[in-house]
Amino acid sequence: MSYDPSALALVPFVSVENMMRLVHSVGVERFITDLAATIEEDFRRWPLFDKTPRVASHSSEGVIELMPTSDGQAYGFKYVNGHPKNAKEGRQTVTAFGVMAEVDTGYPVLISEMTILTALRTAAMSALAAKHLGPANPRTMAIIGNGAQSEFQALGFKALCGITHLRLYDIDPSASARCARNLAQSGLSITLCNSAQDAVEGADILTTVTADKQNATILSDNMVGSGQHINAVGGDCPGKTELHSDILHRAEIFVEYTPQTRIEGEIQQLDPEHPVTELWQVIAGERAGRNSDRQVTLFDSVGFAVEDFSALRFVRSILPETGFYENLDLLADPDDPRDLFGMLTRAKTRAPEVLAAQ
Amino acid sequence: MSYDPSALALVPFVSVENMMRLVHSVGVERFITDLAATIEEDFRRWPLFDKTPRVASHSSEGVIELMPTSDGQAYGFKYVNGHPKNAKEGRQTVTAFGVMAEVDTGYPVLISEMTILTALRTAAMSALAAKHLGPANPRTMAIIGNGAQSEFQALGFKALCGITHLRLYDIDPSASARCARNLAQSGLSITLCNSAQDAVEGADILTTVTADKQNATILSDNMVGSGQHINAVGGDCPGKTELHSDILHRAEIFVEYTPQTRIEGEIQQLDPEHPVTELWQVIAGERAGRNSDRQVTLFDSVGFAVEDFSALRFVRSILPETGFYENLDLLADPDDPRDLFGMLTRAKTRAPEVLAAQ
Repeated sequence: MSYDPSALALVPFVSVENMMRLVHSVGVERFITDLAATIEEDFRRWPLFDKTPRVASHSSEGVIELMPTSDGQAYGFKYVNGHPKNAKEGRQTVTAFGVMAEVDTGYPVLISEMTILTALRTAAMSALAAKHLGPANPRTMAIIGNGAQSEFQALGFKALCGITHLRLYDIDPSASARCARNLAQSGLSITLCNSAQDAVEGADILTTVTADKQNATILSDNMVGSGQHINAVGGDCPGKTELHSDILHRAEIFVEYTPQTRIEGEIQQLDPEHPVTELWQVIAGERAGRNSDRQVTLFDSVGFAVEDFSALRFVRSILPETGFYENLDLLADPDDPRDLFGMLTRAKTRAPEVLAAQ
Repeated sequence: MSYDPSALALVPFVSVENMMRLVHSVGVERFITDLAATIEEDFRRWPLFDKTPRVASHSSEGVIELMPTSDGQAYGFKYVNGHPKNAKEGRQTVTAFGVMAEVDTGYPVLISEMTILTALRTAAMSALAAKHLGPANPRTMAIIGNGAQSEFQALGFKALCGITHLRLYDIDPSASARCARNLAQSGLSITLCNSAQDAVEGADILTTVTADKQNATILSDNMVGSGQHINAVGGDCPGKTELHSDILHRAEIFVEYTPQTRIEGEIQQLDPEHPVTELWQVIAGERAGRNSDRQVTLFDSVGFAVEDFSALRFVRSILPETGFYENLDLLADPDDPRDLFGMLTRAKTRAPEVLAAQ
């Protein structure tokens, strides 16, 4: 068959392999830093975004979600699943891919893997929030939960916030050891800790990023000292929280998008009227962030579609210079838009022998 | 870079070219017939499906929609845009692609072009509805609106209902001529008509499939005779209808999914309490279809996610035997699911020269 797709038919696709090339060609820390700058730009123009709620399909084993948003010019969505039992079967708990399209034509312009990209954007988002909310000149971060996300968090906070020391704790010591091994060349000083209590000792920033799908108490109130910033990443769906509610009553709470965080975040434990501040308001200069060096700040992060949009937008922006993509023949593009059937027929007529050979 | 994706990382992808090969290897009429049988199967088990409403993002120029559904085992969604002004710019008004995933793991198992596939499933759906609702032994079908969908409709009704004669009308005579030319080898007798009134003369089935995004009167009541079946395909979004409301008051109305059709279908012109029957109930034997050979039946079709699910399921079922797909390296699949960062690092370590060469 000699069907020869026109440029209009083709959609750039970033595979896992090309995403890894892209990240390495830029450098992990630089990638997270530039991605954070893109998120920061988009958060400054937050009111522009069409904030459709995510569409979730729940089953007994997990959830599949579509997370769409648009800034009026571009439209993006992410497909993402969450299946805790997958890890036992040698699969990822979370996999994701994303699509960006032009609002003006409805044509997709990018398809990208987003398993790796989501890890990078989550780290970029966390570090960006801490840059705006955390104590000045932080040096030490505790990471409680040393799974797939932990190294990305560490490098994001190193690059954006100047973290130099890590204190790692996981209920599985081999997870902490893996994280430390993976970061051996990063320039970070790393301490492996025997308990969460030990890990938070002397930390300026406390990152919780555990994976259990339940209400857990990873941090209790007595573990949190004045002036610390809590980066709560792991509590991100109904019934899954990491912090004791006493912490929530003491901390100044910042969220991405209040209606979603009330359902999915740590604050699902609180009264629906409990005051919170949306992070974009701080970034846009409309609301104060931290108001003293003794205040406890909490970024109750659940991940929002705008961040994925920023991530796709950033990847798209660096594709021309890097070339790490391939073109997918995804969109039927007949010469005459009304002649879809003719395109189909002509494809057959041109080279019947190819078909016969199949 | 010697990253070598495992089988778990790969997702079968059906490009436009491979979809055309697939259709030709099976044959268009056979493809529509088998696809209709798959839709029929899924309509019989309709109550099983998770019928999430579609998620639409509207702009001044058009709409982008995500249409998800699930039968509890598989999950599918379609991305589809509708931009009427695209045709003037040499693009398709509607383009689409779809994804199918396993509910149990959340892993995508198929990505497919759906511009061509949607045309085929719409024809399959229309013909299947007419098989259940239309007059016995129909011979002649009028098609009003001879755009991209018309040939598929013609072949669907030939294959499933035994239509032998077509009467074509379009406000643009060249569209009818193109449709007739494309169907010259089909075995159908074709009459080009000068008006819609002319086209409906002696027809057993009236198909309206015009493209204008407005309330139009393609058929008025005096044009519809007793016993005819109306297959109303073109009226499929708010503010876009094709039939005079008098027809709706006279006909027995069948729809796909009532809540959606009340908003998008011809019946948006009627009182929200006006009685309609869901087609699946007829197919499952729960409700009567046509009750006499003088009754006017109307299938008020808007296209529903279950039909796209059936289309993806059918395509997936014939991939192993045909081989018309390629594998996309879409899902990050580290040896240790918790070691996403390690996969990234090792990819760099293995072949730094490749990266340096970029």
